Amino acid sequence: MAAAVTRKSRARCYGGFQDVYEHESNVLGVAMRFAVYLPPRAESVRCSVVYWLSGLTCTEQNFITKAGAQRVASELGLILVAPDTSPRGEGVPDDPAYDLGQGAGFYVNATQKPWSSHYRMYDYVVEELPQVVRSSLPANESAGIFGHSMGGHGALVAALRNPGRYRSVSAFSPICNPTACPWGEKAFGTYLGPDRERWRAYDATLLIPSATERLPILIDQGTSDEFLERELMPERLEEACRAAGHPLTLRRQTGYDHSYYFIASFMEDHLRHHAAAFARSPD
Amino acid sequence: MAAAVTRKSRARCYGGFQDVYEHESNVLGVAMRFAVYLPPRAESVRCSVVYWLSGLTCTEQNFITKAGAQRVASELGLILVAPDTSPRGEGVPDDPAYDLGQGAGFYVNATQKPWSSHYRMYDYVVEELPQVVRSSLPANESAGIFGHSMGGHGALVAALRNPGRYRSVSAFSPICNPTACPWGEKAFGTYLGPDRERWRAYDATLLIPSATERLPILIDQGTSDEFLERELMPERLEEACRAAGHPLTLRRQTGYDHSYYFIASFMEDHLRHHAAAFARSPD
Repeated sequence: MAAAVTRKSRARCYGGFQDVYEHESNVLGVAMRFAVYLPPRAESVRCSVVYWLSGLTCTEQNFITKAGAQRVASELGLILVAPDTSPRGEGVPDDPAYDLGQGAGFYVNATQKPWSSHYRMYDYVVEELPQVVRSSLPANESAGIFGHSMGGHGALVAALRNPGRYRSVSAFSPICNPTACPWGEKAFGTYLGPDRERWRAYDATLLIPSATERLPILIDQGTSDEFLERELMPERLEEACRAAGHPLTLRRQTGYDHSYYFIASFMEDHLRHHAAAFARSPD
Repeated sequence: MAAAVTRKSRARCYGGFQDVYEHESNVLGVAMRFAVYLPPRAESVRCSVVYWLSGLTCTEQNFITKAGAQRVASELGLILVAPDTSPRGEGVPDDPAYDLGQGAGFYVNATQKPWSSHYRMYDYVVEELPQVVRSSLPANESAGIFGHSMGGHGALVAALRNPGRYRSVSAFSPICNPTACPWGEKAFGTYLGPDRERWRAYDATLLIPSATERLPILIDQGTSDEFLERELMPERLEEACRAAGHPLTLRRQTGYDHSYYFIASFMEDHLRHHAAAFARSPD
């Protein structure tokens, strides 16, 4: 039974509502906020949900403020759900670096102290949050998932490890091979410990060969992204998909960077990708 | 001769560029930043410019981050220019209140010390900034102006006082009668002094009767805007326009508040209003 959900804010937006909710997360052991866009269609019928996972340093606010997604979700009748990127607050371990601790949960279940008591963002995003959403919002059973950078990694891993759970997946500039880049090595080493075998369950490139469901992946990647070569490495995911016969549309967008200006520019394509998947296999 | 303009940032956005520039303002006596969206069309021809004036507390960042205007400007081939809302920095007078001093220039030319040395946002927006834009960007002579709240007031006043200068004007939740609301009385009393006769040149409702050009005004106003009755008072402008025969389309949008979620929801209509005016009277 999901705990009570409290609405913290609501604003009319493109005929629907841009809300922020808070609830006590059993998985994370803290109060968590998540943003919800409710399209006009949700006033009369249950709608499909697309989960957005944000990148490093973000809260539930960045996506709803900057991505320009509400216009298209309003038209397509999609609920958008964007959680915070980590547990937060007093008693939650943190690190002064921007790429570790609060704001940098990396969508894993930490096994190492002191992180293991709260940093369980994988279970939160895959299990608890969808239960809360279905019990408290006009959502149907169809869900897609997408995200940006660290959140693109999280979306790909969530979809690849849970066949049948998501109808669609996409990502903007995802960390494609986190076991082999500085961001991922630092986070996984800290949260999961030194045994690199235990990191493999959170690496999209390494999960592709054994994926039992060939869910088509859409990725947009800016060619002027400052993190492209060092952290993101889409060519590794591309090669894994080619070898495994996994359907991937990887679009290299000339001159675009890592910012929300890039995300906003291609948001409509991603939401249409998710809506088309819901239309192909109705709830 | 306009001083040198320096580009501080650039990001690809909807096929064009979202830039921020800085220049030494002669009018304000400080370095000023303004944001510019350049549509793809600006790579080959000079484009019309729509100026956006932001509301209280904003910098040049709020509009470009939150309003979702670039998508439509890209399609319509419009340059968007969004200046900061006041002079800033050391040596610039300030006030701890959010509605006075830095971030709250109110688009007037201050006459009272210590404000009069820097707070000349009316001349900056109407005179200096357009000169800088025309000399440093691929802009043609056609311009429109719009804004939000304090910036909606600024846009209306700029258009009403300068017949022939703007082809189009619109506003989101503007301060329609600032000489008769708390925000306006505080700002005008501080910047312009106690003689209320000198406030009249900055009040759209009071300027309507003597306007020599009947430029059609488009206004969107949320009915759940917390500032509606106390500060904005569109019914006063509506009555002045009715009495003078000034064309006004005032749309009361049910349930919308004062936020950028409201602005984004109706941004496309406003940009199409401006583009239609440019099409009717080509440069």
